[in-house]
Amino acid sequence: MKTIAIVGVGLIGGSFALALRKAGFQGKIIGVSSAPTIEKALARGVIDQALPLAEAAASADLVYLSQPISQILDTLDVLETDALVTDAGSTKAVICERARKLKRGRFVGGHPMAGKESRGVEQADADLFRGRPYVLTSREPQLEVWIERFGARLVLLEPAEHDRQVALVSHLPQLLSTALASALAGKEQVAGPAAADLTRLALSPYDIWRDIFATNAEPIDAALSAFIARLEELRSQLRGPEMERVFSEAAASARALRGK
Amino acid sequence: MKTIAIVGVGLIGGSFALALRKAGFQGKIIGVSSAPTIEKALARGVIDQALPLAEAAASADLVYLSQPISQILDTLDVLETDALVTDAGSTKAVICERARKLKRGRFVGGHPMAGKESRGVEQADADLFRGRPYVLTSREPQLEVWIERFGARLVLLEPAEHDRQVALVSHLPQLLSTALASALAGKEQVAGPAAADLTRLALSPYDIWRDIFATNAEPIDAALSAFIARLEELRSQLRGPEMERVFSEAAASARALRGK
Repeated sequence: MKTIAIVGVGLIGGSFALALRKAGFQGKIIGVSSAPTIEKALARGVIDQALPLAEAAASADLVYLSQPISQILDTLDVLETDALVTDAGSTKAVICERARKLKRGRFVGGHPMAGKESRGVEQADADLFRGRPYVLTSREPQLEVWIERFGARLVLLEPAEHDRQVALVSHLPQLLSTALASALAGKEQVAGPAAADLTRLALSPYDIWRDIFATNAEPIDAALSAFIARLEELRSQLRGPEMERVFSEAAASARALRGK
Repeated sequence: MKTIAIVGVGLIGGSFALALRKAGFQGKIIGVSSAPTIEKALARGVIDQALPLAEAAASADLVYLSQPISQILDTLDVLETDALVTDAGSTKAVICERARKLKRGRFVGGHPMAGKESRGVEQADADLFRGRPYVLTSREPQLEVWIERFGARLVLLEPAEHDRQVALVSHLPQLLSTALASALAGKEQVAGPAAADLTRLALSPYDIWRDIFATNAEPIDAALSAFIARLEELRSQLRGPEMERVFSEAAASARALRGK
């Protein structure tokens, strides 16, 4: 690959560019973004050049779509390229379905499962993906080689399976945190670290979640329903001896989630 | 106060002793605990002397019950003292009810809302209570003066109200974390910081929770039911425009919980 076009040079797109450079990419990195973002990205040396989408897509070997989900969908509607195309959207089924419209080029869905509390190209970081899962919806050696060089962990998942899993590990926790923060409004007086832990996610801005709910509502609905059933079960076991086993299995899972 | 008996010299009891010393207490601190704990507490200089319960209670001006809840209840059944008695149990209604059996002495329920991930007198810390809420179930100037000197924040709550509030801010988060860790068993592959945040509490050992569930089941049941209803509501709003307001109100509450 000689030329890579990054569409949406924010935290993820900017980090992808910096990670490529750190991993030894010698070619050209073109940015497609809003004027203020382009200015910052050029100033930081994150991209080499800025071009409009059509021109960038025409000269690139890889087009990397790292916009918000709804904008990735809009870009796929108009994108014309012979390049390999991938994306960084946090839901996959709707995006992969839309990508089937591409007349030319080849699409592989992606989801680098990494982030920071603050966004924007100012926060871009060559090591953002290190040690983190990087999902691809199908094998693609040209991408896999870079994912490996980034120190990320390749995970192959079909779009629907990816969406079911992130509904559980990411979207459900967000909704629990949001619901708990609502429930604790006005209870600051006695709230401690437990409440703080579980409501940190509730600080997330809604704008990224709008697109996630719009494109992953069914798996989230299923995850919520299953979780509600689990809570009802726990409620019925509160006074019973099963709780000890429940706690011990949950602790084992919590340790596994931390890689311990 | 000249002599204080601490019954249960673990993290909380040991920290209470160290905090008293740091705040200028000049009298004697007697420890009532198991032999291995007493040895460590004496070696660290946390207590001045060890005595059996009856002798400690007979010579103390203040008896501080910092055992697990079920042991506090057992102690209250046999305690004979003319001293002021208080406790550090994390539920209050059952303990305060049991304390009415005391033939002599005066009881004020307490709950220092502070802790650490590790327990034991080895972890005791003179600053454990600093900046944290310290609940009393009624006014008691002899305790309030020390709570203030510890840098803790006095909160007056009747036992039933305390139990309702901790069911929400502490026991509900624990159950959500435990239920979520169960639900995510086997999903380590794609789990990230969101899942880690929300399942940290699930690492808690069951032994302290057994007593909490046994003595606060009704308020926890009510908190769980209300939360389940809230989740059902969110589920029905997933695709709707209300979500933006829900997120913004939850974020405001999460900021308030952090004192921001």
